[in-house]
This record gives sequence, structure tokens and C-alpha cells, in this order.
Amino acid sequence: MPFISFDGPKLTKEQKENLVKGLTEVSSEVLKMPKEIISIVIRENEAENVGVGGELLVNRHKK
Amino acid sequence: MPFISFDGPKLTKEQKENLVKGLTEVSSEVLKMPKEIISIVIRENEAENVGVGGELLVNRHKK
Amino acid sequence: MPFISFDGPKLTKEQKENLVKGLTEVSSEVLKMPKEIISIVIRENEAENVGVGGELLVNRHKK
Amino acid sequence: MPFISFDGPKLTKEQKENLVKGLTEVSSEVLKMPKEIISIVIRENEAENVGVGGELLVNRHKK
Amino acid sequence: MPFISFDGPKLTKEQKENLVKGLTEVSSEVLKMPKEIISIVIRENEAENVGVGGELLVNRHKK
Amino acid sequence: MPFISFDGPKLTKEQKENLVKGLTEVSSEVLKMPKEIISIVIRENEAENVGVGGELLVNRHKK
Repeated sequence: MPFISFDGPKLTKEQKENLVKGLTEVSSEVLKMPKEIISIVIRENEAENVGVGGELLVNRHKK
Repeated sequence: MPFISFDGPKLTKEQKENLVKGLTEVSSEVLKMPKEIISIVIRENEAENVGVGGELLVNRHKK
Repeated sequence: MPFISFDGPKLTKEQKENLVKGLTEVSSEVLKMPKEIISIVIRENEAENVGVGGELLVNRHKK
Repeated sequence: MPFISFDGPKLTKEQKENLVKGLTEVSSEVLKMPKEIISIVIRENEAENVGVGGELLVNRHKK
Repeated sequence: MPFISFDGPKLTKEQKENLVKGLTEVSSEVLKMPKEIISIVIRENEAENVGVGGELLVNRHKK
Repeated sequence: MPFISFDGPKLTKEQKENLVKGLTEVSSEVLKMPKEIISIVIRENEAENVGVGGELLVNRHKK
């Protein structure tokens, strides 16, 4: 604890490194907790598996 | 917000379209909120990764 | 399975009844699965615990 | 989308504001996405509801 | 990591202690990982916030 | 309900069987509930998608 679950699109390895670094720094600073106890899971989702406004993202992107 | 996480089996694209459409309509109507702010993530799970009653689904299906 | 986690605001009991009824019907129909095996958890969140666009909802509502 | 679920301890309103601001900025920058589409839910957990190393946090804190 | 999210009813402190102890032991044994790196969050849900078979648990319990 | 979400590394089928069996037994015993109503989802995460202490697990493992 703390545990962060990040739901988003496909990411490059570099983006994952920067995301984990940044989210951990912010959390550690705000909560005054050591970085070591902060864990993060990045859930990469296909655009076909995400809905916004009643439509699949993959279909919204085609418009 | 609202955010819906749907854990279920593998689905066809058509099922995903109907699921997102239907879940969004119900949520929008009940909460009197615009569809645009409702997001959904569909998490497709292998039967080997789901347990019910202490057994993997993949093994229960074989019986 | 399927399991639905619904993150949203505080709701009345009647809204929860309609939400569970509607989400279950849609899921059962699309997946051709019996309603009995569909479970839903409604997570009610204070506006102070939800962020959109970098701000707490409770602060956005004041504008 | 993206959607961030943050599981952690009780926080002050100021901490929540800083957390949402910081996590959104990092995500927006790394993913090159507008802040407006990034939502965050902060889940505050009692120390009695969190386990680490097989023990409740509330009991570990007493040692 | 590993991280376990347990969604269930209201529990006593003793139940939470036994649950965290047991779930950690099983996970540590199966994954051959030290208990120290296993975290668990217990999410207690009101029966009014849980739906099964299209109905709120609180209403099913009345039958 | 109860519903357990298990976030961890890649597992063999045998590990999944033992994990589901063990977690269900502990939950059923502690909550005095039938195994049949306990569902579990195992989320296998690549080491590149997990962050601890501000670093991706895949990079920590190289050290």
C-alpha cells in the first residue's frame, strides 16, 4: 500500500518507465511515504475493449 | 465518472458494441447523467484464469 | 462471473435497484448467460474522492 | 480513459487535491493526452482493512 | 505485487485477521514468494450495494 | 460475492488450480459461506507492466 491501478491504452516501455517514475514520485511526496512501498499495475486495453459515450473507442476513432 | 469495469469471458466485437451501448444507456438513464461521461472497460478473462467454487472454470467446463 | 464493478456517486436505494436490474438484463442478454451468475458491486464515491481533469469533483461543482 | 484507481490510507482534502493534480499531470504528459479525459478515484482504506505480510496494518502499527 | 482485492460483506476484526493470514499463506506458498511482498485490501460492501441475479442482496435476504 | 481479484505474475495452470483452491477454502472457512458463491479472477501481469519503488519490475530484475 498504496496501490495504483492504471487503466489506459497500449504504451511503449519508455512511457511505462516514465509513468511509474512520475506516479510514484507524486504519491510518495503527497503521502510522505517511501517509494519502496508504492506499487503500480499498468493495464493496457485494446480500443475495442473500451467504451465511452456508449460506443467502442475503436469505432469512435474511425469517425 | 461513472466508470464500469466488466470482468467476463472472451467476447465478439458485436457483443462488445451491444454491451457498451446497453450498459451506458442503463447508467445514463438511472443516474440522469450524459452518456459522454460514462466509461467502460471490458476485461476478457481466459477460463483458466477464473475460479468458481474452488475450481478453475476451464476444468468445470470439462465435466 | 461475469462481475461488474460500478464506480459512481452516492445513489438512492431505488437507483441501485434499477441499476442492478438494468445492468444484469443487458449483460445476460448480450452474453446469453443466466442472470443468476452475474454479480455487481456498486462503489459510491464522495465528490472529494474523485478527480477529473486534474481537479477534485467537489471543487469543480463549486464553479 | 485513462482511469486511475488509487488505493491508500485516509487523506486530507489538501492531499487529495495535490494527488489528483500530480497524477493527472504525469499521465497527461507521458501519454500526450488532454487532462480532461483522465479520471481518478481515491479509495481510502482503514488500516484494519489492509494486510501486508499476512498481518493487518493496524496490528503492525502497534508493534 | 502480488496484490489481492477482496470484495465481500462486513467482517469482524478477527475475521479480517484470519482472512489476511490465510490468503497470504496460500499465495506465498503457491507462488514461492515472501509474505512481505503480498498486500491485500478488504472491501466491505453493504448488502444494498451488491447485486446478484438482477436484485440487490438486501432485498434477496428479505425473501 | 465474495469476489477476489488477484494481481500477480504469469502462473502455470497447476499454480492457478492451487491458488483458486486455497483462496476459496480460506474465504469459505473465515466467512462461513459456501464455496460455490466465491469467484476469483487471476490477472497475470508482465514484469514490464508492474512498478515498485518507482521502477518497472523488469528493470529491477536485471540488477
